Amino acid sequence: MSTLAIPETLSVILERKSVRTYTGQPVGEEHIKWILQAAMAAPAAVHKFPWKFIVIRDSEMLHYLAGGLPFAKMLAEAGTAIVVCVVPQEAFAGKTELAVIAGACASQNILLAAEALGLGAVWTALYPDPELMQFVRTELDIPDTVIPLNIIPVGYPSGKDKATAKYDAANIHWEEW
Amino acid sequence: MSTLAIPETLSVILERKSVRTYTGQPVGEEHIKWILQAAMAAPAAVHKFPWKFIVIRDSEMLHYLAGGLPFAKMLAEAGTAIVVCVVPQEAFAGKTELAVIAGACASQNILLAAEALGLGAVWTALYPDPELMQFVRTELDIPDTVIPLNIIPVGYPSGKDKATAKYDAANIHWEEW
Repeated sequence: MSTLAIPETLSVILERKSVRTYTGQPVGEEHIKWILQAAMAAPAAVHKFPWKFIVIRDSEMLHYLAGGLPFAKMLAEAGTAIVVCVVPQEAFAGKTELAVIAGACASQNILLAAEALGLGAVWTALYPDPELMQFVRTELDIPDTVIPLNIIPVGYPSGKDKATAKYDAANIHWEEW
Repeated sequence: MSTLAIPETLSVILERKSVRTYTGQPVGEEHIKWILQAAMAAPAAVHKFPWKFIVIRDSEMLHYLAGGLPFAKMLAEAGTAIVVCVVPQEAFAGKTELAVIAGACASQNILLAAEALGLGAVWTALYPDPELMQFVRTELDIPDTVIPLNIIPVGYPSGKDKATAKYDAANIHWEEW
């Protein structure tokens, strides 16, 4: 029996779901700003922050990107998209691995902040697929030295998408492997 | 002026800090289990979950690991450590990049869950440093096919460590790069 009152944050972490269907209601700019604040509150090695965020709200562009990205067909319906980019040269020791890790942590904060605000979001991957990265680079004028990690649609959830149980005690080792 | 009431989760995300000094008070097993639940609630590409978690509470081992890891000297003081590992073969398409990203998202959930529970934690990196990874692999019997991503001390914070302001509007691009 649990004796621990579960903080709201834990509930949000556990209930967060990948949202792929949206109502179409536009997301307010204030919400987007909170989400970006959350993104930049992530950790990064030696406080070298290699992340950049492209916010896209133009309907024509969202439709165009959706047309070229097989796993991001819902971009236009969501109404807002955030492309999380990382610049390896700006990471500690110029390491791509550390840039990607910082970008992943920032992305996870985006997903959680959206959930906390009653919005929905989902990580649709660009990296490490060379073709998907190049398509987005070309369309959004992203330099070749920058890695577009993912494109995250953000919108009001339809309610159809549910969290799935992913806990597996077999993934836990005690004291050693 | 903000018209938006900030959810607790957003406050936790924004106030989360890297905790490097601890009181020494032991962390209860229930807290560790919530933290591991949070870890496994992270997203992973195509629902292929490549993560494993080694929980270390043995004082002798924590001292030993602290001795070999220059950025993890506080392990013994924290009292608990979680080594986040990923198995590339278990990630979608066997891709190391996707394994590392999933492990990073799980790690970020660990850091946030600790903060939400009134505990402190900090990402001390092993990957991509070959020597640090090998030291931990050897000591904890981790197979060569597994990447030990980081070692995260978890304990009660001394109160000395504070969140730092990392928001920078220059990292945001609107509509295109």
